[in-house]
Amino acid sequence: MGSAPRRAGHAGVGHSRGAAGRRRYRRRGDRPGGARPLCRHPATAPEVSTQPGFFHVVYTTRALRRFRSDPVPDEVLFQLFDAAIRAPSGQNAQDWRFIIVRDRRVKERMQEWALQAWQRYAERFPDIDSLPRSQRLSLRSVEHLARNFSDVPVVVIVCGLRGRHTTPGGSIFPAVQNMLLAARALGLGGSIFNLALGDRETLRQLLGIPESNEIFCALPLGYPSDRHGPVRRKPVKDVVFEERWGQRWAFAQAQPDEGWQARWLPAEEG
Amino acid sequence: MGSAPRRAGHAGVGHSRGAAGRRRYRRRGDRPGGARPLCRHPATAPEVSTQPGFFHVVYTTRALRRFRSDPVPDEVLFQLFDAAIRAPSGQNAQDWRFIIVRDRRVKERMQEWALQAWQRYAERFPDIDSLPRSQRLSLRSVEHLARNFSDVPVVVIVCGLRGRHTTPGGSIFPAVQNMLLAARALGLGGSIFNLALGDRETLRQLLGIPESNEIFCALPLGYPSDRHGPVRRKPVKDVVFEERWGQRWAFAQAQPDEGWQARWLPAEEG
Repeated sequence: MGSAPRRAGHAGVGHSRGAAGRRRYRRRGDRPGGARPLCRHPATAPEVSTQPGFFHVVYTTRALRRFRSDPVPDEVLFQLFDAAIRAPSGQNAQDWRFIIVRDRRVKERMQEWALQAWQRYAERFPDIDSLPRSQRLSLRSVEHLARNFSDVPVVVIVCGLRGRHTTPGGSIFPAVQNMLLAARALGLGGSIFNLALGDRETLRQLLGIPESNEIFCALPLGYPSDRHGPVRRKPVKDVVFEERWGQRWAFAQAQPDEGWQARWLPAEEG
Repeated sequence: MGSAPRRAGHAGVGHSRGAAGRRRYRRRGDRPGGARPLCRHPATAPEVSTQPGFFHVVYTTRALRRFRSDPVPDEVLFQLFDAAIRAPSGQNAQDWRFIIVRDRRVKERMQEWALQAWQRYAERFPDIDSLPRSQRLSLRSVEHLARNFSDVPVVVIVCGLRGRHTTPGGSIFPAVQNMLLAARALGLGGSIFNLALGDRETLRQLLGIPESNEIFCALPLGYPSDRHGPVRRKPVKDVVFEERWGQRWAFAQAQPDEGWQARWLPAEEG
């Protein structure tokens, strides 16, 4: 895929018929254990159908922390950033700044911090193997990432102006979420992984980030060894109130605990 | 549309053939000035194509601040929350809590705060009409919302545990962004609008929010009078560095300033 965008057929990263991008996307999707591709339509289908479905992406974006060694092509990374910057920010300040880190020396340093932080954190869970399955798997994947951070294909460090906004994070994490959703849409995996930030001040100096900026998060990204899939959560009825804190919302009380994801996912994933 | 989700055809809000939901979605989309519907396929098309395209949604979600008076049905609101809670949160804490506010007395109080905040804010812009078009339109829509806040169909107040997470906002705003994107996907408009929060402490007491929680943002939502459409931003090349702050990323330098949205939008919107 060339560096200039092509308009014909509204092909995006990994969707150009016969181009390198498409072949890559298909190949990864077909591999056992690889990311499931979200595009099921030939390039001749109407435009909107050639991209992954919005709700399908939202309902199946998991925090994935194990990666294959395949590099992430620049064109895929660019698509993630180009999605990220469409997010809102206070007064449209767009003070988000991103640093792409692939330098192994920096990642090794971050791995040291991640391991130290993991060891402190793990003290809370003296017997991980006895925990419920989902919590156990999640903690094991955090540990895996802490131990293998220097092998992560690409780490994105997200910064923003210190004290620029009244609501901290409100002008950064919408962009971060766009990025994680776009990663899922293109077959990548990632997560917010701040165990690897150390004291943040040292990393700031290491990357030459000016004092005017603070580091909000680290996003390790790559083609995942684990799969995306339906995301289970505390149901809406437990977290949404009507008019006043604590007042249950009758409509939500009548919905199934698993929510409405079955409406949007293909049968085999629902 | 009944209160129980239907699985057949994976119909979602506004997508059930012949059901009230679908008729509503279509009707709104067809009205001049209404939200453009993102679903272009008959219900008989393959499943994934019956939902709006992921990148189409991301590239066209604007902050919309003018609303028609039509109420937002519970089933549409539920879909927004059910999308919101699929977001990640630190240690999967899911400490997000949402309050649906439709009570006019509360909205009137918030309007007072919004107007006061707007008047302070507007002092920075003594001559709004002379500003560049996009900034002028944006400020005028903020002013409109501040002056008409009590007429907003529904306001969602988003809370989270105070001091629960090391990175403020990092466990709230991914969910908020899911919600704003889902709103756009279903033909609604919204924005993060914290001018209406006042000193937050008063609102906290007014809504009975316990001291353990803080208010992160207010989301005024409704069927918009304005249109969603392509979102213009500072280009990726200006906000992404490679390996070190200030080091330009060659790949991004070679891309068009407007990014890759033309790859994903139908011709008339690109």
